[in-house]
Amino acid sequence: METIDLLLTGCHAAAMTAGGAPYGAIEDAAIAVSDGAIAWIGPRADLPAVTARQTLDLDGRWVTPGLIDCHTHLVFGGARIADFERRLGGATYAEIAAAGGGIRSTVAATRAESEAQLTASARRRLEAFIAEGVTTIEIKSGYGLDPETELKMLRVARGLADHRVSVVTSFLGLHTLPAGVDRAAYLDQMIDEVLPVCGADMVDAYLESIAFDEAEVARLFDKAMSLGLPVRLHADQLEDGMGAALAARFKALSADHLEFTSHAGVQALAHAGTVAVLLPGAFVTLAETQKPPVAALRAAGVPMAVASDCNPGTSPLLSLRAAMQLACAQFGLTPEESLAGATRNAARALGLGDVGTLEAGKAADLACWDIERPAELSYWLGGALLHRSWKAGRSVVG
Amino acid sequence: METIDLLLTGCHAAAMTAGGAPYGAIEDAAIAVSDGAIAWIGPRADLPAVTARQTLDLDGRWVTPGLIDCHTHLVFGGARIADFERRLGGATYAEIAAAGGGIRSTVAATRAESEAQLTASARRRLEAFIAEGVTTIEIKSGYGLDPETELKMLRVARGLADHRVSVVTSFLGLHTLPAGVDRAAYLDQMIDEVLPVCGADMVDAYLESIAFDEAEVARLFDKAMSLGLPVRLHADQLEDGMGAALAARFKALSADHLEFTSHAGVQALAHAGTVAVLLPGAFVTLAETQKPPVAALRAAGVPMAVASDCNPGTSPLLSLRAAMQLACAQFGLTPEESLAGATRNAARALGLGDVGTLEAGKAADLACWDIERPAELSYWLGGALLHRSWKAGRSVVG
Ligand SMILES: [Zn+2]
Ligand SMILES: [Zn+2]
Repeated sequence: METIDLLLTGCHAAAMTAGGAPYGAIEDAAIAVSDGAIAWIGPRADLPAVTARQTLDLDGRWVTPGLIDCHTHLVFGGARIADFERRLGGATYAEIAAAGGGIRSTVAATRAESEAQLTASARRRLEAFIAEGVTTIEIKSGYGLDPETELKMLRVARGLADHRVSVVTSFLGLHTLPAGVDRAAYLDQMIDEVLPVCGADMVDAYLESIAFDEAEVARLFDKAMSLGLPVRLHADQLEDGMGAALAARFKALSADHLEFTSHAGVQALAHAGTVAVLLPGAFVTLAETQKPPVAALRAAGVPMAVASDCNPGTSPLLSLRAAMQLACAQFGLTPEESLAGATRNAARALGLGDVGTLEAGKAADLACWDIERPAELSYWLGGALLHRSWKAGRSVVG
Repeated sequence: METIDLLLTGCHAAAMTAGGAPYGAIEDAAIAVSDGAIAWIGPRADLPAVTARQTLDLDGRWVTPGLIDCHTHLVFGGARIADFERRLGGATYAEIAAAGGGIRSTVAATRAESEAQLTASARRRLEAFIAEGVTTIEIKSGYGLDPETELKMLRVARGLADHRVSVVTSFLGLHTLPAGVDRAAYLDQMIDEVLPVCGADMVDAYLESIAFDEAEVARLFDKAMSLGLPVRLHADQLEDGMGAALAARFKALSADHLEFTSHAGVQALAHAGTVAVLLPGAFVTLAETQKPPVAALRAAGVPMAVASDCNPGTSPLLSLRAAMQLACAQFGLTPEESLAGATRNAARALGLGDVGTLEAGKAADLACWDIERPAELSYWLGGALLHRSWKAGRSVVG
């Protein structure tokens, strides 16, 4: 190595590379950063002679890959606080909908708000994720449900990216059928008109009996494939809708939720190499009882990711670490699986090859934590554990 | 009013007084602070002519009472991260105990650490609570289980109090029977020797078949009464141990956990005026399924509080707001009940008359939030919602 930009020492690295030591741990590590990438990582004793423009001693702290939240609905208008109050006050979903609540209230607010308004509220939420070490976040459309607003949401999402955080966008026009439109016309419009011009990085859909069926989603996915766009799917959250199998058939990057996925669905995911994205925030917020088949996913070797699912209706989480804690406490993930779910496997769920682990050549997206062992990241609920973070080698927090 | 120290305007107040508007809400409020107390609060339009040394416009934000965490085990040695990893790796409780884990590992570490070490780790945790608007916190002993260490824990807890936060201490010598001691001798020692000199504000105990029985706790409580100390009880967490009835018999300030409390127990609490302290952190962390009888408590008029139960074994929460969110999501509290549980009813559980609501004459312990309505405090999991806080009129955060 010639001269490097930044040398981190006095730290332990949870490199999150698979197959070696737990957490890919390197005790007493050194990390050399140059040109935004990791130039070298390994035991400090093995560090080649380098000249560093800046050297930081991290005082025994742990460094992990910057966290990756691979499933959020971060951009939305309004909020659903009134629904939340009504529901806990005893109102039924039908009563909430009759009072103007539910997803349709979010759609109405998202249509009504300007790009600047949507950006301002989403940015406030995004700051909470950045403050916790998130350096990459996925954001979906799906509260517009008309061409103009779906495109507006995606523009807002892309506009949130800056030197501190990367944004991956998903087109979720098939989230729910909006009120007062013809079903066939809506599908034509979303699949044939909006999808080709939306500029999203991938395509998502909601396969549930209350949303869209297998044939409809397959038509969307066929179109996505023809455009060269990867797909993913909200699957089997409320019932076994054979969502995992559908996702696998299209070699989806991920299948998300999976509470009701069958054994056959798990096998299909394993064969397709599709990531299972677990979303404990909705599970806990809705006090659900049917848990995703974690033991079967683990046994079949399906990579598991964990995400906040940040959304105003079912998962009002402003913390990926909260999802990691709940994934352990409620779904039985190990702390190592949980951290892999917010790093290595989250990157895979987004089709990103240059982030998610600490390896030479990958982006220097780093989080440094005030902890004594990596399991603490999934152990504590709350707390400001982040000491510093870097995105592509540039300091973000700290 | 003559000259006051601080005048807050441009805010809405969730005064959390009972019986009036939801949240005791005062829209477009003014709050006058003098000599550490609330000198006046009401609609801004009714504010008498005052001269204020400092006036702050809070830009439409909400002000609530400073939050009160009425049940924590914040002071402890070591941590139980290894247990957490073992448990999620599939180990049984017996295997964890055999590996040196469980509460006995916390006891060993708490005995081994110096007051300075215990203070340093507890203070780090306390900072997380203060950063979220907590201005009063209760802290228990109970990991010493010998005279010296129980007294050390209580000294550490008292030493954490400063101008930013009040600390209320509970003596929990009857937490669990330590290894290798005679049961009768231990009870004699804790009740007759340690309790009278411990200096705690109140007395707590663990009534469970794995801990202490009714006669043992009654003996402790009789002694506490003779010393003029209020009592409270960990009750009915793992089984219906008639804990609520025992707490009620001694007019306990609170009965805590209550997952298995019967209808008769609820009625007893109601008649005694005992506060039910709900602890969703342990419920969620242990993936329990038996929920406390919230509907019955509500119907009987039992005041409900919500606390973090911060402890290394069963509730690693560094956030009272997380407990408030989980109390709604998992136990079905309304957002107003949840906020009352972390303010007015938490004060009552600690026997404190001067905090917990915003009323003239009470301490100016205040939290100002970046929210549009008070329900958001129990809606979002995570997020830095606190804008500013004050303890006895002095600025803490912001
Ligand atoms: Zn979703
Ligand atoms: Zn406790």
